[in-house]
Amino acid sequence: MLADAAITVLARSGSRGLTHRAVDAAAGLAEGTSSYYFRTRSALLQACVERLAARTLAEMTTGAAGPASVDGLVTACVAVLGHWLTHDHERLLARWELALESTRRPELGTALRDAGAGVRERVAATLADLGVDAPRRRADDLVACLDGLAFDQLAGAGRPARDADGLRASVTDLVRGFTATGD
Amino acid sequence: MLADAAITVLARSGSRGLTHRAVDAAAGLAEGTSSYYFRTRSALLQACVERLAARTLAEMTTGAAGPASVDGLVTACVAVLGHWLTHDHERLLARWELALESTRRPELGTALRDAGAGVRERVAATLADLGVDAPRRRADDLVACLDGLAFDQLAGAGRPARDADGLRASVTDLVRGFTATGD
Repeated sequence: MLADAAITVLARSGSRGLTHRAVDAAAGLAEGTSSYYFRTRSALLQACVERLAARTLAEMTTGAAGPASVDGLVTACVAVLGHWLTHDHERLLARWELALESTRRPELGTALRDAGAGVRERVAATLADLGVDAPRRRADDLVACLDGLAFDQLAGAGRPARDADGLRASVTDLVRGFTATGD
Repeated sequence: MLADAAITVLARSGSRGLTHRAVDAAAGLAEGTSSYYFRTRSALLQACVERLAARTLAEMTTGAAGPASVDGLVTACVAVLGHWLTHDHERLLARWELALESTRRPELGTALRDAGAGVRERVAATLADLGVDAPRRRADDLVACLDGLAFDQLAGAGRPARDADGLRASVTDLVRGFTATGD
């Protein structure tokens, strides 16, 4: 609960706004609660990374099997991107804040990489099932590019975010590029 | 000079570390200098956005004409991405800090969008010259995805950054996806 509150604070107020006091207020708990459980700011940041990773993993475990065609992969990617942009933007903003913070705190980088690896392995397995060459490298790229499209539409020059048809056109191009088998 | 110092502070210490005092120290100037020219933190952030935009525009103006083939576009994108990752990472980190900050400060968002528009228009003109359909939308996507690859390798799960051959493989896939003309 405290980690979820900290993620909300990160998304709404940035890394700069992340203080124990702000987390207590966001969680509706007495002042001093979050510093009792997470003594330092670094411990609070680490808790955010672990909580984000746990939520992502839980979603992946409950999800269905990977898509069985390129069209199915496009549909799955459009669904993920659409969900990110509409319902999950706080989680994305918090993750990007943590990613930038991890350039200055190597211990956060390790936790973020471990969390990202689970998602990428699953995408790589799907690409391999579709007969795509270099599935690991392409899975890493595809995830990074989907993240780039989300960043652009939530925080970059691509605001406001596109509608579902617009997302589908972008993702179709992207997936085509990373699933070509003819070379 | 102050804006460049502020960009360096943003990249190295994050939005949280950006104070007038830190900017004065990074610029090697007497305390109080940056607050004389940029009274508020908001003015300092705005100066960073404008300076980043001016540097990007200056590079674009001095650059050669757009690439005349898809292979040429791949080569140009690999060169840009490689430069970002090796020589320009502070500028990228600063831009991402500003982008996240702009989700809370709409006035920064406007300046960032204007700066991004110049780059995207140039890419769109190249795609149009190559006979690609929907060049505007695809230029926006291509730039957002290149930015996503850079984010992943500088701050995300893709660290450490790939070598030139690895970048070329990624960019080849990406450009292929966004330059397909057969549909």
